Amino acid sequence: MSAQRRQLHLNLFVYPGGHHEAAWRYHGSDPGRVLDIAFYQDLARRAEQAAFDAVFLADGPSLPDNVRYASRFRLEPLTWLSAIAAATERIGLIATASTTYSEPYNLARLFASLDHLSRGRAGWNIVTTGAPDAAANFGLDEHPVHAERYDRAREFVDVVGKLWDSWEDGALVADPGTGVFADTGRVHPVNHHGRHLRVRGPLNTPRTPQGRPVYVQAGSSEDGRAFAARYAEAVFTAHQTLESAQEFYADVRSRAAALGRDPDGLLVLPGISPFIGSTEAEARALQEEFDELTQPGYSLDLLRRLLGLELGEEELDRPVPRHLIETGGERGLGSRFQLVLDIVDRERPTVRQLLHRLAGARGHHVVAGTPEQIADILQRWFEQGAADGFNVMPPWLPGGFDVFAEEVVPLLRRRGLFREAYQGRTLRDHYGLARPESVYATAPAAVPAPAPAPTTAPARQKEHVPS
Amino acid sequence: MSAQRRQLHLNLFVYPGGHHEAAWRYHGSDPGRVLDIAFYQDLARRAEQAAFDAVFLADGPSLPDNVRYASRFRLEPLTWLSAIAAATERIGLIATASTTYSEPYNLARLFASLDHLSRGRAGWNIVTTGAPDAAANFGLDEHPVHAERYDRAREFVDVVGKLWDSWEDGALVADPGTGVFADTGRVHPVNHHGRHLRVRGPLNTPRTPQGRPVYVQAGSSEDGRAFAARYAEAVFTAHQTLESAQEFYADVRSRAAALGRDPDGLLVLPGISPFIGSTEAEARALQEEFDELTQPGYSLDLLRRLLGLELGEEELDRPVPRHLIETGGERGLGSRFQLVLDIVDRERPTVRQLLHRLAGARGHHVVAGTPEQIADILQRWFEQGAADGFNVMPPWLPGGFDVFAEEVVPLLRRRGLFREAYQGRTLRDHYGLARPESVYATAPAAVPAPAPAPTTAPARQKEHVPS
Repeated sequence: MSAQRRQLHLNLFVYPGGHHEAAWRYHGSDPGRVLDIAFYQDLARRAEQAAFDAVFLADGPSLPDNVRYASRFRLEPLTWLSAIAAATERIGLIATASTTYSEPYNLARLFASLDHLSRGRAGWNIVTTGAPDAAANFGLDEHPVHAERYDRAREFVDVVGKLWDSWEDGALVADPGTGVFADTGRVHPVNHHGRHLRVRGPLNTPRTPQGRPVYVQAGSSEDGRAFAARYAEAVFTAHQTLESAQEFYADVRSRAAALGRDPDGLLVLPGISPFIGSTEAEARALQEEFDELTQPGYSLDLLRRLLGLELGEEELDRPVPRHLIETGGERGLGSRFQLVLDIVDRERPTVRQLLHRLAGARGHHVVAGTPEQIADILQRWFEQGAADGFNVMPPWLPGGFDVFAEEVVPLLRRRGLFREAYQGRTLRDHYGLARPESVYATAPAAVPAPAPAPTTAPARQKEHVPS
Repeated sequence: MSAQRRQLHLNLFVYPGGHHEAAWRYHGSDPGRVLDIAFYQDLARRAEQAAFDAVFLADGPSLPDNVRYASRFRLEPLTWLSAIAAATERIGLIATASTTYSEPYNLARLFASLDHLSRGRAGWNIVTTGAPDAAANFGLDEHPVHAERYDRAREFVDVVGKLWDSWEDGALVADPGTGVFADTGRVHPVNHHGRHLRVRGPLNTPRTPQGRPVYVQAGSSEDGRAFAARYAEAVFTAHQTLESAQEFYADVRSRAAALGRDPDGLLVLPGISPFIGSTEAEARALQEEFDELTQPGYSLDLLRRLLGLELGEEELDRPVPRHLIETGGERGLGSRFQLVLDIVDRERPTVRQLLHRLAGARGHHVVAGTPEQIADILQRWFEQGAADGFNVMPPWLPGGFDVFAEEVVPLLRRRGLFREAYQGRTLRDHYGLARPESVYATAPAAVPAPAPAPTTAPARQKEHVPS
């Protein structure tokens, strides 16, 4: 295990109860604790003990109807991760937030704050919000269409990047002798006047330990890939097969290279939801136990939203009516729609079989096997050009994570694929990403930037955001 | 000290460095820690050891120009208080947030989250944002005028109240046996269509331990008083004299009563910034030491913004040019403008004298004396109809708070004016405010609401928000 060897990156994707839709009904769950911060703090501490790169929280500014059947309310990520930051020291903290339903000045402040109070562990999972019902919570008659959302997203990321850069490193002087608190010559308005946004700036907080939070992105549509290639430093993506992941991996890296970026500065992290048993049969039995706890009402609702299919419970054991799906394609759901369509075309499942395929992790890759088999899959994807690491999505929490940490992580370490311990202190350190300079930087800082602890992780990226 | 006796409420108003504009230059300060979460967590723990009701953070979504001279950047309150929540158990957490520059759905989520993760300790200091330069950070050509801001504020508070009520208590069922996670018959859209806002709802998180955060308000203009009388459960207010505070106290209580509210459900908490010494002379010398660290550039900028006075350093030792002030009256600054004008009319100060009067706490009441003298002032205001408690604004932090906690608090306890220990667990418990029922409550909850710990504090308010 030389320090130079490429290693896996692992995030724990935290979902109330767990990722399987029936997780909260499993006897190993504790649904009474879905709103208990101590539950999540403890989980993050366990992930930190396992030296995971980050914990990750999804988000959306509306309430899914299927909360009737599953733990599908939302934990507001910035506040929950701030409280988790206070209970941890090293692990990264990735919050999802919407460019469609936020004000850039407010969002820039929330993430700058998370980066300050976590001493450099913040990541931003940039989403444009897929759920159309969000619009009505923000005074809009209609959810903006996919292309329009991405157009705003590009402008939004440019603006918040400038806000995060608006205080140069070293602009916070705080010299009691001279009476200079801030060198306001090094604090810059951003004066943005764009198609969607106007923001003067500067931000009302000094530059953060990481300069900017790590930019993460999770859409895999055509717009999403172009966006990732330009802005993302890590991409979460859903793939059911090695081949699909390899195509995506090669595609986003070549797009990034075409934009002049070092492709190694763009980590590709597919989701994976592992059922683990001491034998393969035991793992499959566990998965079946979960699937039997699912409720058709939940899943039929999911099919309606994903594919536009209106089906009743009487149709559960008939084949998925493939010919009825076409109408869903233009509904702006992008890559997840295509992924489900591929399952239908490849496997020709009954409605119930498809529902069970989706129950595990909403279209992400669900696997069942022994720790060795799981480690083999991760290694294969990692070594065969499909992944730089994974967003680990335990079927239930905390148990589904514990067994991964106790049984799979040691195997990955024995194979030299995963760190024994953190070598740095910031999320950029863990991901091997350089700290970006402010676009306004005028001169070497008189006062050094908040220094990350010494790290041997290679700085792989010189420039993250063209601007 | 019977449990029935009326007692003081004390908040610690946290400001980076401290409230005196030169605090960060004082030798007892540590300006290198203004962005260190551990500094603020430790401060909150000390306030909790002193059984203070709450810590309070101010806010504004823009950067004051005078950050050149003083620690006037902003800590984003929701994230910082979430991290502080994780380091404390009992103390209330009051965050300032703007109704002018927030989306109600986003703000409702942030506060609901803080209330959940602190187990019922959140308060919302409702402001309309005074600083006109905020507008340019949000795509507006002009800062909305005072009356327009308050008009939106009223609608905004109505909407977020409905969002916080949109999940009835008990709607989160989480019964693995029946498969019902949420009783969606008890989760309600809010369907708000108003002049300023349209929000469908419901909120995407269950109802919080306190039902709603405690509603705090800090404006004392005519609009501000009317707003406080209708909505506020606690009012922060700035008064230089007992008489002014008495007038305010009687006025807002009678306004609340006229609206059918119990005036005891509206706590009046003036700001006070104490310099404490073992003799009065020592306390005054300490205050002078701070005043000598002030910088005219800072204060002249403050006069420009507060009074519209454009003065140079050469005018520092001349009388304040009272005849030039009039033009500032319509600039929407409301009560703070009037307060400074009163000082000018009452004291006829030189410019430098006025600057020193304002340096301590931006117009709040600055006092210097022995612990006994400070306790006497607090007792007098409390017993003579001017205050239900105080927003304590230490000139510097943490030392300025420590001396208050160690020297003044024991005197207040000996006089039976302040609690020895917390009797409840939520901010509503500490303030003696009842937990409001959801406006959508349809039936007795099948599952009891998250129960605050037993408390002997009287529940003084039946209904907080007419809607």
